[in-house]
Amino acid sequence: MIKVALDAMGGDHAPKAIVEGAILAARESQGKYGIVLTGPEDVVKSTLSSLGYSGYAEAGMEIFHAPDIVTMDDTPTSVLKTKQNSGLMACVGLQKAGKVQASISAGNSGAMMAACLMVLGRVGSMPRPAIACDVPSFGRNVTLLDCGANVDEKAPTLVHFGICGSIYAETMLGIANPKVGLLNMGEEEKKGTEVLQEAHQLLKQAPINFVGNVEGRDIMLGEVDVIVTGGYTGNVVLKLMEGFYEYHLKTFGKIDSVQGRQFHQDWDYANRGGAMLLGLKGTGIITHGRANAKVIKNGLDLAYRLASNQVSEKIAAKLSQVA
Amino acid sequence: MIKVALDAMGGDHAPKAIVEGAILAARESQGKYGIVLTGPEDVVKSTLSSLGYSGYAEAGMEIFHAPDIVTMDDTPTSVLKTKQNSGLMACVGLQKAGKVQASISAGNSGAMMAACLMVLGRVGSMPRPAIACDVPSFGRNVTLLDCGANVDEKAPTLVHFGICGSIYAETMLGIANPKVGLLNMGEEEKKGTEVLQEAHQLLKQAPINFVGNVEGRDIMLGEVDVIVTGGYTGNVVLKLMEGFYEYHLKTFGKIDSVQGRQFHQDWDYANRGGAMLLGLKGTGIITHGRANAKVIKNGLDLAYRLASNQVSEKIAAKLSQVA
Repeated sequence: MIKVALDAMGGDHAPKAIVEGAILAARESQGKYGIVLTGPEDVVKSTLSSLGYSGYAEAGMEIFHAPDIVTMDDTPTSVLKTKQNSGLMACVGLQKAGKVQASISAGNSGAMMAACLMVLGRVGSMPRPAIACDVPSFGRNVTLLDCGANVDEKAPTLVHFGICGSIYAETMLGIANPKVGLLNMGEEEKKGTEVLQEAHQLLKQAPINFVGNVEGRDIMLGEVDVIVTGGYTGNVVLKLMEGFYEYHLKTFGKIDSVQGRQFHQDWDYANRGGAMLLGLKGTGIITHGRANAKVIKNGLDLAYRLASNQVSEKIAAKLSQVA
Repeated sequence: MIKVALDAMGGDHAPKAIVEGAILAARESQGKYGIVLTGPEDVVKSTLSSLGYSGYAEAGMEIFHAPDIVTMDDTPTSVLKTKQNSGLMACVGLQKAGKVQASISAGNSGAMMAACLMVLGRVGSMPRPAIACDVPSFGRNVTLLDCGANVDEKAPTLVHFGICGSIYAETMLGIANPKVGLLNMGEEEKKGTEVLQEAHQLLKQAPINFVGNVEGRDIMLGEVDVIVTGGYTGNVVLKLMEGFYEYHLKTFGKIDSVQGRQFHQDWDYANRGGAMLLGLKGTGIITHGRANAKVIKNGLDLAYRLASNQVSEKIAAKLSQVA
């Protein structure tokens, strides 16, 4: 059975919201996958009891004792060196040891990225695995990557992002031959930075359905399934979109109509499981620092689906075929 | 008296919407500034008559005969070489000759940029003048630049963007000591691309109120007045924001409430005059290809205010003081 390790101590509302999310997931998944909560055993156990859930073992939940505490101020390097016995490091370490098949944390995202990269390792030419996020687009979803793991990417790295995104969309979203676009500042091949122009040519040769350049507007109203960009621009786009939704909520509140409910369903990040690390020898998810129980539950489900669909194995196989 | 030259033949709805916009501006400004319509004289005259406006001379409007037609397929180089007598080239040429003080076109934006750059010339270290746009932010406006003129900028160019934006916000928006932020993927100094890290250090030394890095969310919900980024990312942000408004309209239509009317006022690009070219020896505006009469009217007003406030002269003076 697939097991997912969850950092019980990561995130603004840990451990309560995290443990509550695990309980939700265990109830709803009805034993389809196992959950290992990593963190100080006493804290996790007392949180479980305070939530009225002492029979966690019967529900397929385990606790892995990891007493060190990672804070948001810890540097990734210091976490790797001095906090091996933290919930964050343990949830990744258990995957490396083959005890679980996926890892998820809402904690220090730089440290989680570093742990996944250094402990699990990466595939392909990407200096770091790409952060891939599903974002709302009119009448569809779009998978955007990289949302901030890499900077100053070279053109072949952008091609690897495209391959990762294509395999994800095909495997997880069931889209045959996903349309992959390169985020640029014009449709013409000769538009954009030198790296974008070179990437455009390389993407045309890549074993994916590359449909050419797309622009910012196409994120919202386009026809592509996957949008490739560098980590800087992708991070700006992702956070701008979170900002849009917050702006909308501050202006209009929750709009209670058919359209409004669909809009909130599509835009509320709580309905997404988190950011996926693609290009890793394994399955890692960095979820929102402000994650509530629903986010954690969705993150666990996403982690399970990524692992059971062998997305990372499929990406590794494809990347080994290209330069 | 300040005169603004307007390319009568530029834009999807030219010449009708353009000439209509000029009429609106002439009526409302009541002779505060003059308008020179550049384009084929017979076409402009017949458009004016068809709009019931033959007494244009009394309203401070002139026509400058420029029979060549620029299409959206023309390359900037071919326009500069072979279409000197087009409305687009003439509206810039008249400024170079000192006959008008500002130029505006809704036509081929690459050609308009090239015409402004090659005919008027630039100031500072920017390879091209920055495209600056006022964009909506919660409870305020933010001036974003560069929105797509430059690519692969070096760090000193980003500093020049910051100075341009700061002077614009101070002079035109009346903001004392405008807060300037660098669009990045984290608040820490060491975040982002190599160029961003270098620019951060240079911005700290620059003669502006640099408040540090800002993130995508801060475009919507931040506290800065000016946001600096490279042309690629700025262009993506601008078009994503246009897309978001379109998405919102498709989902909810026009929301008829106090909040809704304010939202549409802030987000409808028709309420803005267009994109300003900052860092030019002169005043140039590239307005939306889909511009209607209201956009043109706002663009003319903006051009007049930029020229009468001597924004380009103030920018040139400041940039000459820094490396």
